[in-house]
Amino acid sequence: MRLPHVTDLAGVDAAAVGVPFDTATSFRSGARFGPEAIRSASVLLRPYHPALAIDVLDALSVIDYGDLPVAPGDTEATYRRMEAGLTPLVDAGVFPLVLGGDHSITLAELRALARRHGPLALVHLDSHTDTWDEYFDQRYFHGTTFRRAAEEGLLDPQASVQAGIRGSLFSGSDLDDARALGFEVIPSEELRALGPAEYARKVRARVGDRPVFFSFDIDFLDPAFAPGTGTPEIAGFSTAEAVALLRALRGIRLVGADVVEVSPPYDGPGQPTATAAANVALELLALRAVSE
Amino acid sequence: MRLPHVTDLAGVDAAAVGVPFDTATSFRSGARFGPEAIRSASVLLRPYHPALAIDVLDALSVIDYGDLPVAPGDTEATYRRMEAGLTPLVDAGVFPLVLGGDHSITLAELRALARRHGPLALVHLDSHTDTWDEYFDQRYFHGTTFRRAAEEGLLDPQASVQAGIRGSLFSGSDLDDARALGFEVIPSEELRALGPAEYARKVRARVGDRPVFFSFDIDFLDPAFAPGTGTPEIAGFSTAEAVALLRALRGIRLVGADVVEVSPPYDGPGQPTATAAANVALELLALRAVSE
Amino acid sequence: MRLPHVTDLAGVDAAAVGVPFDTATSFRSGARFGPEAIRSASVLLRPYHPALAIDVLDALSVIDYGDLPVAPGDTEATYRRMEAGLTPLVDAGVFPLVLGGDHSITLAELRALARRHGPLALVHLDSHTDTWDEYFDQRYFHGTTFRRAAEEGLLDPQASVQAGIRGSLFSGSDLDDARALGFEVIPSEELRALGPAEYARKVRARVGDRPVFFSFDIDFLDPAFAPGTGTPEIAGFSTAEAVALLRALRGIRLVGADVVEVSPPYDGPGQPTATAAANVALELLALRAVSE
Amino acid sequence: MRLPHVTDLAGVDAAAVGVPFDTATSFRSGARFGPEAIRSASVLLRPYHPALAIDVLDALSVIDYGDLPVAPGDTEATYRRMEAGLTPLVDAGVFPLVLGGDHSITLAELRALARRHGPLALVHLDSHTDTWDEYFDQRYFHGTTFRRAAEEGLLDPQASVQAGIRGSLFSGSDLDDARALGFEVIPSEELRALGPAEYARKVRARVGDRPVFFSFDIDFLDPAFAPGTGTPEIAGFSTAEAVALLRALRGIRLVGADVVEVSPPYDGPGQPTATAAANVALELLALRAVSE
Amino acid sequence: MRLPHVTDLAGVDAAAVGVPFDTATSFRSGARFGPEAIRSASVLLRPYHPALAIDVLDALSVIDYGDLPVAPGDTEATYRRMEAGLTPLVDAGVFPLVLGGDHSITLAELRALARRHGPLALVHLDSHTDTWDEYFDQRYFHGTTFRRAAEEGLLDPQASVQAGIRGSLFSGSDLDDARALGFEVIPSEELRALGPAEYARKVRARVGDRPVFFSFDIDFLDPAFAPGTGTPEIAGFSTAEAVALLRALRGIRLVGADVVEVSPPYDGPGQPTATAAANVALELLALRAVSE
Amino acid sequence: MRLPHVTDLAGVDAAAVGVPFDTATSFRSGARFGPEAIRSASVLLRPYHPALAIDVLDALSVIDYGDLPVAPGDTEATYRRMEAGLTPLVDAGVFPLVLGGDHSITLAELRALARRHGPLALVHLDSHTDTWDEYFDQRYFHGTTFRRAAEEGLLDPQASVQAGIRGSLFSGSDLDDARALGFEVIPSEELRALGPAEYARKVRARVGDRPVFFSFDIDFLDPAFAPGTGTPEIAGFSTAEAVALLRALRGIRLVGADVVEVSPPYDGPGQPTATAAANVALELLALRAVSE
Repeated sequence: MRLPHVTDLAGVDAAAVGVPFDTATSFRSGARFGPEAIRSASVLLRPYHPALAIDVLDALSVIDYGDLPVAPGDTEATYRRMEAGLTPLVDAGVFPLVLGGDHSITLAELRALARRHGPLALVHLDSHTDTWDEYFDQRYFHGTTFRRAAEEGLLDPQASVQAGIRGSLFSGSDLDDARALGFEVIPSEELRALGPAEYARKVRARVGDRPVFFSFDIDFLDPAFAPGTGTPEIAGFSTAEAVALLRALRGIRLVGADVVEVSPPYDGPGQPTATAAANVALELLALRAVSE
Repeated sequence: MRLPHVTDLAGVDAAAVGVPFDTATSFRSGARFGPEAIRSASVLLRPYHPALAIDVLDALSVIDYGDLPVAPGDTEATYRRMEAGLTPLVDAGVFPLVLGGDHSITLAELRALARRHGPLALVHLDSHTDTWDEYFDQRYFHGTTFRRAAEEGLLDPQASVQAGIRGSLFSGSDLDDARALGFEVIPSEELRALGPAEYARKVRARVGDRPVFFSFDIDFLDPAFAPGTGTPEIAGFSTAEAVALLRALRGIRLVGADVVEVSPPYDGPGQPTATAAANVALELLALRAVSE
Repeated sequence: MRLPHVTDLAGVDAAAVGVPFDTATSFRSGARFGPEAIRSASVLLRPYHPALAIDVLDALSVIDYGDLPVAPGDTEATYRRMEAGLTPLVDAGVFPLVLGGDHSITLAELRALARRHGPLALVHLDSHTDTWDEYFDQRYFHGTTFRRAAEEGLLDPQASVQAGIRGSLFSGSDLDDARALGFEVIPSEELRALGPAEYARKVRARVGDRPVFFSFDIDFLDPAFAPGTGTPEIAGFSTAEAVALLRALRGIRLVGADVVEVSPPYDGPGQPTATAAANVALELLALRAVSE
Repeated sequence: MRLPHVTDLAGVDAAAVGVPFDTATSFRSGARFGPEAIRSASVLLRPYHPALAIDVLDALSVIDYGDLPVAPGDTEATYRRMEAGLTPLVDAGVFPLVLGGDHSITLAELRALARRHGPLALVHLDSHTDTWDEYFDQRYFHGTTFRRAAEEGLLDPQASVQAGIRGSLFSGSDLDDARALGFEVIPSEELRALGPAEYARKVRARVGDRPVFFSFDIDFLDPAFAPGTGTPEIAGFSTAEAVALLRALRGIRLVGADVVEVSPPYDGPGQPTATAAANVALELLALRAVSE
Repeated sequence: MRLPHVTDLAGVDAAAVGVPFDTATSFRSGARFGPEAIRSASVLLRPYHPALAIDVLDALSVIDYGDLPVAPGDTEATYRRMEAGLTPLVDAGVFPLVLGGDHSITLAELRALARRHGPLALVHLDSHTDTWDEYFDQRYFHGTTFRRAAEEGLLDPQASVQAGIRGSLFSGSDLDDARALGFEVIPSEELRALGPAEYARKVRARVGDRPVFFSFDIDFLDPAFAPGTGTPEIAGFSTAEAVALLRALRGIRLVGADVVEVSPPYDGPGQPTATAAANVALELLALRAVSE
Repeated sequence: MRLPHVTDLAGVDAAAVGVPFDTATSFRSGARFGPEAIRSASVLLRPYHPALAIDVLDALSVIDYGDLPVAPGDTEATYRRMEAGLTPLVDAGVFPLVLGGDHSITLAELRALARRHGPLALVHLDSHTDTWDEYFDQRYFHGTTFRRAAEEGLLDPQASVQAGIRGSLFSGSDLDDARALGFEVIPSEELRALGPAEYARKVRARVGDRPVFFSFDIDFLDPAFAPGTGTPEIAGFSTAEAVALLRALRGIRLVGADVVEVSPPYDGPGQPTATAAANVALELLALRAVSE
């Protein structure tokens, strides 16, 4: 969106922040170039959001905060750098809109935000629950993020909703495990049957007026709409469906958000995945703007 | 469709005409190669249209008239050349099916057709209204076409319908401006809610038995279905939806049509955008054939 | 799915078998690399199928039988080699799940299976009926397979359903011809209107408890979901729709299946077509598993 | 080159002829789209050849004769159709410049030409000698062409030179076999050491004033310069080297030529292989023009 | 190179400046995205240049000045905006390194520079002389730049060298015309025969101690090395050859330079053309640094 | 090469071993898919090597040992798994030909080999010396491998040659540092000037009859020949040059080798990088075979 690249936070309401990191990816890497691609695609965005009838850049002072420092090859060191990088934003009351990067990075975002807000309600659109315990012996990985977050008390699973889940699993207990942690898990067919309004009603019932973190994994979308991602699952959602779901959430109290798992080397020639991610980012800013 | 390349117009009912021009493009250029790609993709088309139960090439004598002369780098000179090139077709009563090229070219088509038919009714599927006044100080651009056409009296906005409009805007007044010109503007969510039958009812109510120009901007389709275009907007329509909308219009009095904004360098490996455009062109020929 | 590559059939329930052959393709070749691409994409699959609540690899002993010998450039010689290659599987009662390859190969599969099971019921999802008589003077081609199979008595057309058919035709008689052979033909718009449950009801009514061969031509899917195929037809089905249709068939008595016409050189960067095919293959294995 | 598409041969000196055929391909198919891609790339060509100081289209009346009829899936039927298609050209004394298609098609060209000219001298740039006896039990294949041609007496191997040969072989006897047939075989390293002038001297010494057929397999070029081909071999030639070799042959008596094995689905985004092939075709026309 | 994006010119020695413009392109558009792609590729560059033994960023204070304003669709308006945009740089004595954009933009650069330095010596590596008089009736086009520059007195053709010229021409007079304007024209084969040292000697003899403008059209490189360009010509130069030629010029008095005609939509997956352009830009900065 | 996939090492001379790992990559990830791509490309290889006049598979019993276990996201854990995986091969006297994977993996190979052979002589073709001390604070990274190997005594730098080095550097001391460790460093221009024979003479003088480890980083090749790699450097070597250099080394005593940094998501449509890597692997096997 040709946002000003600024690091002075005075008077700033929201900041786009890149995290060029993909070390914690199980299948296709490349998400480290997600922030660059989303920014490039965002030049097509314009500030007025007709469906929510709001000029996002009028309503919010938004900056591009650049990329956070990371440590390619070392997930835990990256967490430390990310937390240090995000803390000034959080302390200044700036809404961080993080552009990933693989889904492991959400843990560091939650650590930074929970220090200020306490346990957050999670609203999560994804094809995976990311609640495994370990993967290749590693505890910090893009498939373990929300288990770790629950264990660390950064999230309140009872106030959280994971939706869009689909795809074959290692075992039938995978979804049970997420539910045992307290998350509400809505599989994709159920979400499609619910529709936006009913989904939003469910979410509002769970999150209430708690501070909400929204995590949008681009593989929530079908590979036809978002081919450039690390672990694609077929039978997913269209961008029209996604946008309708997001807009239905108007009124939740967003305090942080991210759009993750955009992997440009697997994107199509016109970069449809990055374009979708940039639009989702704008929807999240608009959601924040109308919840002010 | 392996149509004969002919320039003798005797006995001809309809002609496919290419306009390899993309000078008036704001974002991604490349539409100058649209006509070549659409022709290449059209070899998969066959003449019988099962849904409308008509053999298009039996019903109409169709030729490939080749490409019109253009002036790359100079939009107004291109308009002059296009009008001169289209006039023999229009004078001979041949239905021109123009393959673009960027959307600026429609203005020259309308000039050529309006000289014979008077102000036309516009049926327009697109994600943008293309009714800006200027862009980068230029009055003739792919985003200003329908304002210019209204100003020049080539269209009757009161008899016209623009549908599928979506995406972020420069300001909330963008859609109001199109409506102030007289156009009926149906945003994408509203179009999806209407469905084909109700959409067709609305169109017929507006256009009546006026001569109709149909303009199909390929970015009406979602980028998943038509990635190869200059200004993609997510949350668009599938080809199945588009085809259903087109078929519902059976009976309108088509006198001209175009399919524009196919940009092959951004298309996927199997050229899905050009394939979609070739099929849309066949649908438009079939619509013409059944309205004879 | 990282299945063991085994050629000893003792104790084996089902086998994935590749047929790297595309000589009988009318438009875009490349399906000879389909088996390699589907296997590559299948590493993302996991054994538990949540919608059918079954662990496929627990329920069935599944192997990768490798590729059958073919004769590139000679369709009939390929048929002989394929039949010879499949016979040990069929004799051992192993469920063959063939990964194509163009659609001509299904004839050899049916020959091998019909020797054991007699005429099979065909359940066929495709955008084409593949019931032409000849093409370029050739009787064995990817568009003539099911006419040949009916003529050879390998199928019982009265027990068979072809669905998803769409696209322009050479003449209005194309669909009539398939119906004259006895097949039930459900065009795409009709299938979409029926929905999964009604479709399944129709299929069950036709096939009863006969042994069923399931043939999934990847061009049943829309090119947005499966761009990598030889003769794409727009206005097709999403993977979500396809998966719902397949799951609704729970209970039919599958004795053989294939997934054909995956052409990797036309696939997108993230290989969405091969990913879709691998998932369809898993659905077919799951259908087989629950019908045991 | 935007040549006129003409089928009337009066006054014509040379004709570009497409053969969209790839049935006889051992590895990557796709060469059936070679003619379309080469024509598309040829629009960048201009008629004056500065190195040979000749305006090719002034010197020769050149037409585009379109594509010959083929039989996809049947090599021998294709040969019959090709010969029938080429005979009017050969009878009219028109120089045929064939755009392939896979290398099997050269046999039909030689059959048509040898009927008029008797056994031809072959000048052949390729990474393979294409002198196998059989492949997958097939005698007519893209790797057996020149053995068949020698056996049928269409070529005089003693007057022929195959150069650029490289890559791993099935056995050490592969090159010996070609030499035993009488061909002079120049491996790639030897060709590079010879340089254009010495190569041309060798060729002239072999061919003398016999009628020459020139066959250019695009895989003579390195995959960096021609990635879009069926059986790429590394350590090949640059286009600069190829052009220098061709120009050095000035004066040989060309009566026919082809450029084969261009496989567009494997070409890069800017279609470098087709561009190289179009330029080689122009060099061959220029060679013909200066030998008049 | 992650240069600071700065618009304050105090203490600045050199500035990278983008010109996202491709309206004046005859064949493949897309160069408007050249600056973005070159910047993206430049993150792999490091400051120390081992061959010239200089740390470029130690020797020069270099900034990224961002993109100049342009008017897509209007070449002459773009020239006016570019000149206005460049003048502060030229006035401040900052060395402008312009990243194109199509080759038409060089005229505006020369206008801005010649106002300060008088007629410049041109050192030009390209496959075309760009000295046509008109193209499609247009005087300002990417193929007319250096004729216009000579006519406007911005260049001293007698002090200028154009090298690398190749490819088919509209007529034999094309090169004569450039020479008649006074340019020394070195065709590609001659340049290859000269080698770097002799080429540099020729250049130095022409340019003497005059202020030099260096224009590098990326199509000087062979399409194997730079596929992403608008009018590729085969038989070009490798990057190793290009780099050697550039380094041999050590000591010429550079006052301005550009790298043009990078068209990212036609580039390969790893963006080799943009990578080559970024490296050429670094070589030009290094040449400037050692000539201080 | 369709090698048998075997894990029983009795009677085996050499084994291809994949290491699908790219965690230690600084720029473009994706090398984890290198082994799959190289194997896929190797089906075009045939066993007879004409230049060395040896049938590699006659001379050596070669197997495909599959992939070693790795720990994506954790370089040091990967080293431990790799060493454990390689030890049975090394103990059995099997020549390991490792297919990477990023260049960090060479350290684990050297650890496994040095335990048997003592400090090895390194023959290294690459554009980088990979002798940094740290990168992003990490000691085990693809740019630090050979410093670590020297420090651990796995290599004898005095017996080692690194050649092909090029590209911009962080500082002028980068090459000095490698030399200070004892390595002979031959920059690319110097290597090109030396030519194969002289290069081989230098290598033989350094390595004598010591056991040699050969490491081939695919970015030794120019991006035109090997675009699919993580940190491309222009002005590199052609495959023809590379092959000539390798063949000149006939007679060195190879005990281990790898081909690394093949990143398929950045490769071109015909997978030229993987094809080059497969051929280099065959050259290395042939070198081993003739040194027996």
